Amino acid sequence: MPIRTIVWNENIHEQTNETVSQNYPKGIHGTIAAALSAEGDIEAGTATLPELDHGLTAERLKDCDVLVWWGHRDHDAVHDVIVERVAKRVWEGMGLIVLHSGHFSKIFKRLMGSPCALSWREAGERERLWVVNPGHPIAAGLGPYFELEHEEMYGEPFSVPEPQETVFVSWFQGGEVFRSGLTYRRGAGNIFYFRPGHETYPTYHDANVAKVLRNAVRWAHNPTGHWTTVHDAPNVPVDRAPEKIEERGPRLHKAGEAGYR
Amino acid sequence: MPIRTIVWNENIHEQTNETVSQNYPKGIHGTIAAALSAEGDIEAGTATLPELDHGLTAERLKDCDVLVWWGHRDHDAVHDVIVERVAKRVWEGMGLIVLHSGHFSKIFKRLMGSPCALSWREAGERERLWVVNPGHPIAAGLGPYFELEHEEMYGEPFSVPEPQETVFVSWFQGGEVFRSGLTYRRGAGNIFYFRPGHETYPTYHDANVAKVLRNAVRWAHNPTGHWTTVHDAPNVPVDRAPEKIEERGPRLHKAGEAGYR
Amino acid sequence: MPIRTIVWNENIHEQTNETVSQNYPKGIHGTIAAALSAEGDIEAGTATLPELDHGLTAERLKDCDVLVWWGHRDHDAVHDVIVERVAKRVWEGMGLIVLHSGHFSKIFKRLMGSPCALSWREAGERERLWVVNPGHPIAAGLGPYFELEHEEMYGEPFSVPEPQETVFVSWFQGGEVFRSGLTYRRGAGNIFYFRPGHETYPTYHDANVAKVLRNAVRWAHNPTGHWTTVHDAPNVPVDRAPEKIEERGPRLHKAGEAGYR
Amino acid sequence: MPIRTIVWNENIHEQTNETVSQNYPKGIHGTIAAALSAEGDIEAGTATLPELDHGLTAERLKDCDVLVWWGHRDHDAVHDVIVERVAKRVWEGMGLIVLHSGHFSKIFKRLMGSPCALSWREAGERERLWVVNPGHPIAAGLGPYFELEHEEMYGEPFSVPEPQETVFVSWFQGGEVFRSGLTYRRGAGNIFYFRPGHETYPTYHDANVAKVLRNAVRWAHNPTGHWTTVHDAPNVPVDRAPEKIEERGPRLHKAGEAGYR
Repeated sequence: MPIRTIVWNENIHEQTNETVSQNYPKGIHGTIAAALSAEGDIEAGTATLPELDHGLTAERLKDCDVLVWWGHRDHDAVHDVIVERVAKRVWEGMGLIVLHSGHFSKIFKRLMGSPCALSWREAGERERLWVVNPGHPIAAGLGPYFELEHEEMYGEPFSVPEPQETVFVSWFQGGEVFRSGLTYRRGAGNIFYFRPGHETYPTYHDANVAKVLRNAVRWAHNPTGHWTTVHDAPNVPVDRAPEKIEERGPRLHKAGEAGYR
Repeated sequence: MPIRTIVWNENIHEQTNETVSQNYPKGIHGTIAAALSAEGDIEAGTATLPELDHGLTAERLKDCDVLVWWGHRDHDAVHDVIVERVAKRVWEGMGLIVLHSGHFSKIFKRLMGSPCALSWREAGERERLWVVNPGHPIAAGLGPYFELEHEEMYGEPFSVPEPQETVFVSWFQGGEVFRSGLTYRRGAGNIFYFRPGHETYPTYHDANVAKVLRNAVRWAHNPTGHWTTVHDAPNVPVDRAPEKIEERGPRLHKAGEAGYR
Repeated sequence: MPIRTIVWNENIHEQTNETVSQNYPKGIHGTIAAALSAEGDIEAGTATLPELDHGLTAERLKDCDVLVWWGHRDHDAVHDVIVERVAKRVWEGMGLIVLHSGHFSKIFKRLMGSPCALSWREAGERERLWVVNPGHPIAAGLGPYFELEHEEMYGEPFSVPEPQETVFVSWFQGGEVFRSGLTYRRGAGNIFYFRPGHETYPTYHDANVAKVLRNAVRWAHNPTGHWTTVHDAPNVPVDRAPEKIEERGPRLHKAGEAGYR
Repeated sequence: MPIRTIVWNENIHEQTNETVSQNYPKGIHGTIAAALSAEGDIEAGTATLPELDHGLTAERLKDCDVLVWWGHRDHDAVHDVIVERVAKRVWEGMGLIVLHSGHFSKIFKRLMGSPCALSWREAGERERLWVVNPGHPIAAGLGPYFELEHEEMYGEPFSVPEPQETVFVSWFQGGEVFRSGLTYRRGAGNIFYFRPGHETYPTYHDANVAKVLRNAVRWAHNPTGHWTTVHDAPNVPVDRAPEKIEERGPRLHKAGEAGYR
């Protein structure tokens, strides 16, 4: 069964900026979805900001294995209730790939618990992404590095938690570096942040970038099923303790009472 | 200069439950503050829920090196604006010690980006905390383990991110285990979660617990000063790039413009 | 294509101890290999200490995706040259599952860089393994915990490096705890340490243990191919630098010279 | 009490290469020891390859809080027994700072359990070290980055285990990147790898490098005392188990017997 993937995109700049609409006539989401579907093992649909629930209804998310996120112009327009809905699905095991300016999306900051800030420059300079972890599945099939001739610069410090693994580190022509590929796990959900993708450059048409995105979806996919109890704080009464014990001492909660949250 | 510490407590059960008020006539915060101050290198004040800004004004937090957090009955009563204020100070370098039922506090969930759920049982059973990382400063001066004869059980899975280091793992009489001492870093802020401390038992009068708390405050204290730029996403214009480059290609942002957030 | 797996066993106690030979008439290796092969996606052969090269010739290892290791009585009998050969294949991407008393095997200590010590007691007591990371592929299909009625106790501190992820924590009847399932990566090689398996008990006939072993082999398998350059320290001469630079200043090495190792 | 530090150096190139001897008339060890001692809280002695036991007798190591290691030309000349002696002290809590070409020293490879390889070029190019973790004590007092106008290039992939924290990432003029400051813990020992320091350049006279070295020694120092039992695998007999249990089932070991290693 293919990996069921949704590519989410704001889809704002494609409607308002000529350069972006020429780069991505089908929208960034359309281009990425096509790249993901190219080898048959990933089935990629799309969702955008203006749709009902931003295209992320509970029903759609329930059947989504991996969500890819691109946003930049209007992170604030994403409703908090949708952010929480996505976060819950990530904790239950849905993979999440956050792209480029998505570092400041509500969902990424929500899951990182840190500012996710960085420095930046829009000068069309050269970026060279070095594979620092060649055995990682997200780097499969790549050479020692690949280049993007025109990209926006993102510079350190990138105020995210120490990652589980660092896959890519970028060199920029203007003298900066950036940890460009970082993995995390939250609950049962695998999360990958991937730096490139400024909308005024044709980054998502690049063959190496497409390969990384497919690898990332495959890596993020957790086939072990939905961990729906990840949100629960169940009481285990004395008579259901794994070992026989007797209750002792004073109590705050009455038998059968739920705890405070 | 002593480490300036604030012990924050809801201070609800002390006012409403006879067992708790007998355990902690000065409040949980008072008992912990006294324990922290016992060796002279920590200067511990207190703050509680009913105070203005819950006792956590911007001015107080600015001069706070480490914040200790105990809450249980009414996490929701903590105002979101105070939670964000505390989170910002953590990212800038203030240490944070989260105790027991604080696993469900707004501030801990905010910084972890995960549900922070667990299972529980209030039966006054025996807890034995094993030191799994004897070289860690938080375990300094302890033996291989220490016991609390009466404690609430917390059981795995504890849905938090993989920690930077695991310091303690608890054995419970009823058959469960729990990762009882976990370290994290968010921005420049060191965070320690420490499990024991159910309010109906005299846990914070225990000498080993007091030692752990003092060790934790010393470990969490980051003397490198406030990293106030952790929240910023500065533009680095072409003429201030570390290496000389020339601007190329199309641009989304005008010169001097701030980025989107 | 099935995952090509070798189950390595000392095969000493099976020949010398009646209890062990009754538990494992086909040897521990035979029992584990049968468990691994049960669902068809793993093809498990075996190798033992007395064989030429301990059954681990360079040729066999080259085609091995995952190696499973059980040893106890005579770790020292394993030749250092074979240990290095196995270590190299791990760095190149071969998975490694280290079982029980293998914590003191040469290969595990070699890859951890630490003592890998622990405390122990052979009293046939009850072990309960809690899943602390339910979304991890190694825990797929398990309940919240599983029990082994008779096992040797291993107690903390387990002097290994902080793992990439903790999957299981054990509760012991005698009062100890142990981090029973730990993951690591060295080079391109995924490593899993799994605690149970004392030879005087029938542990490897347990259905949950068999499930964990199959899950672990699938998780450890790295299909990205052999990273054979992981051992190299190549010189990149000036004329092959990614960016054009000119050589400056004094030099220690002559052009084309290999570096020191 | 000052932090008792030993700066170890091969001291070969200083005797055989004119450029190196001009850079470091007191030897690399002398220059580093002077830099460490500059602020009074560190007491730095030296040790070199030709001395008895390479200057690292058991007695000297016993009173050593932090060891700094520089080697390049003849890693193989370091006796294995000394390597094991140093490793043991690291596990017991001695800090270790490994510099530059020390990535291929026996002691570093021993503690990492991986090849520790990288690519390199000796062309006197510019290195810019970015602080990616500004709140880390090793980066205290530094700006966003610092530069070394002439350095040897080290390029990724650096085949070391995923670090506990990444402190620095280097940008090189020739187009490469490198994770230049990495922390690890092995047993109770804090380990820091710091990239710069090619002997034909005056790197250790640089004020920022000196600051990093002092910060690193302070960070690596573990004042909790020697964890000398880190090497032990003690038996815990039934009558000394924390909880009362009765022995059951067959046994491999006789009472009081030591385990196999």
